[in-house]
Order: sequence, then C-alpha cells, then structure tokens
Amino acid sequence: MSRFLIEIRVTPRKGILDPQGKAIHHALHSLGWSTVDDVRVGKAIHLELEADDADAARSEAEAMCRKLLANPVTEDFELLQVEEAGA
Amino acid sequence: MSRFLIEIRVTPRKGILDPQGKAIHHALHSLGWSTVDDVRVGKAIHLELEADDADAARSEAEAMCRKLLANPVTEDFELLQVEEAGA
Repeated sequence: MSRFLIEIRVTPRKGILDPQGKAIHHALHSLGWSTVDDVRVGKAIHLELEADDADAARSEAEAMCRKLLANPVTEDFELLQVEEAGA
Repeated sequence: MSRFLIEIRVTPRKGILDPQGKAIHHALHSLGWSTVDDVRVGKAIHLELEADDADAARSEAEAMCRKLLANPVTEDFELLQVEEAGA
C-alpha cells in the first residue's frame, strides 16, 4: 500500500440555487466591487489515503464522493489530482 | 472591459484545526473507509467579473480574497485560473 494525495472539487450544479454564492456576491458589491457578475461556492477537499495504486485510490475517492462528499441531487464532483505522496 | 472566469481555492492553513475535515474523516471511517489518513476541507470559489485585462482581473480577485473571501489568520488562498470568458 502507498499513500496518495487526492484533490476533489465539489460544486453546486448549474441552475441550482447557491445561497452562499449569492451572499458573497452581495457582500462584494456592497464593498464596491460592482464588476462582479456571478459567484459560485463549492468545496475543495484534500484527502490522504492508503491504496495499492493510483487507479485504486481514484476509484475509492470516487466512491466516497458518491456516498458522502457530494450531494448527488445538487452537486457535481471532480477529482483534480491523484498523486502518490512523496512522488 | 471583458468578462473573466476566475477559480479560487481557499484552504485552512496547515496546523489550524479543521472541524469540517475532522467530521468528514470520522464519517468516512464509520462508513468503512479506514484507509483515509487525513481530510482537509476548503472552499472552491468561481467568480465572473468584468476587467480591462487578465492582470487587472487577477489583482481585483486577489484584493477580494484578502478583504473577504479568505480569513487572513486561518486560511490561505490561491488563484487556480484566470481566463477570459469565451476565449
């Protein structure tokens, strides 16, 4: 087994209300940044896990996303990086 | 002015307690993923803004991070992408 560093991005699906994004958008405008057209806020998740190889690490992380890390109805997830620690 | 798409990642600084990461770590273990060694959770922010050019868009986004989007005491921020919309 080796240790893998995995970066996951979970974002609100297009068309789904994003209250956190709306709140930040409003705050930026009230701070004077009227040039901001849209703000969407998701999660940036860094995982460290043990796996036999990169493919196994990737499929484990995807299963975790489907089961827990991303809401299947309102969010999309993407694995940005799967890297062996110390590689 | 052109429209720019900016992707920002805000992460808890190393050594700072990350309760959300701890909670997810604990949940993954209770779901059977004992191979997970660490979990850290930050924000993935997508901004759309108007600016004269990419450099102006970048410096505006960095100012927004320092002022609002990232807590200067507990979080680090990184601009992952500054791209002209439709480019």
